[in-house]
Amino acid sequence: MALKTVSSKLAAQLDKELMGPEIGFTLEQLMELAGLSVAQAVQRQFPLSIYHKNKILVVAGPGNNGGDGLVCARHLALFGYRPVVFYPKRSSRTPFYGQLVNQLKFFKIPVLSTDDDWKQLLHAKDTLCVVDAIFGFSFKPPVREPFGSIISELISVQDQLPIVSVDVPTGWDVDEGPVSTEHIVPSMLVSLTVPKPCSAKLDKDKTDHFVGGRFIPPDFAVKYGFEPFPYPSTDQILKL
Amino acid sequence: MALKTVSSKLAAQLDKELMGPEIGFTLEQLMELAGLSVAQAVQRQFPLSIYHKNKILVVAGPGNNGGDGLVCARHLALFGYRPVVFYPKRSSRTPFYGQLVNQLKFFKIPVLSTDDDWKQLLHAKDTLCVVDAIFGFSFKPPVREPFGSIISELISVQDQLPIVSVDVPTGWDVDEGPVSTEHIVPSMLVSLTVPKPCSAKLDKDKTDHFVGGRFIPPDFAVKYGFEPFPYPSTDQILKL
Repeated sequence: MALKTVSSKLAAQLDKELMGPEIGFTLEQLMELAGLSVAQAVQRQFPLSIYHKNKILVVAGPGNNGGDGLVCARHLALFGYRPVVFYPKRSSRTPFYGQLVNQLKFFKIPVLSTDDDWKQLLHAKDTLCVVDAIFGFSFKPPVREPFGSIISELISVQDQLPIVSVDVPTGWDVDEGPVSTEHIVPSMLVSLTVPKPCSAKLDKDKTDHFVGGRFIPPDFAVKYGFEPFPYPSTDQILKL
Repeated sequence: MALKTVSSKLAAQLDKELMGPEIGFTLEQLMELAGLSVAQAVQRQFPLSIYHKNKILVVAGPGNNGGDGLVCARHLALFGYRPVVFYPKRSSRTPFYGQLVNQLKFFKIPVLSTDDDWKQLLHAKDTLCVVDAIFGFSFKPPVREPFGSIISELISVQDQLPIVSVDVPTGWDVDEGPVSTEHIVPSMLVSLTVPKPCSAKLDKDKTDHFVGGRFIPPDFAVKYGFEPFPYPSTDQILKL
């Protein structure tokens, strides 16, 4: 069956409608559920009972994708992992991002900046994976520093260290896919609400694809042109 | 092992600290996780594959316990149930309560007021259970109308229709337990964060006890005098 996707433009509209006056979701609610679903997907893919490494590097970008990463890190800690967050460019759009960082401190989760040696985590023996929460569906090229260098570092280790991308593999054009031969190849993608068109360019032998962010009713999916996802039981994720 | 509980006074302090400037959780975040955990507990206890009734009456009180109920109803709909919310006294403390109601409308979940015939749901053949989200840990007697009459109605059907209480069985003294011979006997209690002292008065043959609201680190539990709960995997609930 063909993968149903929703373009970057339509995804932005969907997001806006969810948080608009009629439906009235708050960013805090949707981000909590999105981040929880990514953490659940990581646990599903890398259960601690099988993978005895427990350190996870979460790279958080400056926008909402980064916020999802911050929430994900907190839930990963609750699930027994040892996340470390690298948050090079903090958002000041709303005070909530600062609160998300305080919540990480509450869990004693290290939050690194560009001054810290975050790269050593890419080579540490107990690092299980990297969560790529840098850019999401509103990403527009070109990639600016420091993110260009960060992406290059991730690409250089991705054959040894699995990358879990949140919603969109960072650096990919949301609608078109990879824009250069050197690009992130995630071992796992967690699409939020609905896959974006770039997901169709994933190599299924290399990337496991999940959908997460279980917060819309069936008719809303249909309105945006996709079939509702049959999440089982109380799961916040579905493997596609 | 003795059940570890935290008094109403200490629970209020814990809640305040979680949402204080240092830790910085928002009400929206905690309510989303609390409501999700109650919905998960209901699904665990009454899976649709076994119980073929799918209608659930959620009675929401005027405060935060009611808010947990509103969130719970939305997740129950996502899990395939048909919740109906009875919300007799709406909170105007924050606009967020109005937003939670809008979110229910988004899911086409009926929201009844005292003018509606909510009682027929107590006797309908397809009603699976009632979620009692009326009063929580900040309840102080006496019960005021219309809640006194509502509680009496619930008591009159509780031998036939299971009641799922959120955090505290409504009408019970949070620290002491039942205050009159006629009282709600839930078939299931979902304590949030940590059981309150009244839970020690539950008859284990009649009430299954869960804890939910998985959002604090182990050392914070210890600071408030209880052992962290060993939630398995990504579960938001633990059966005690």
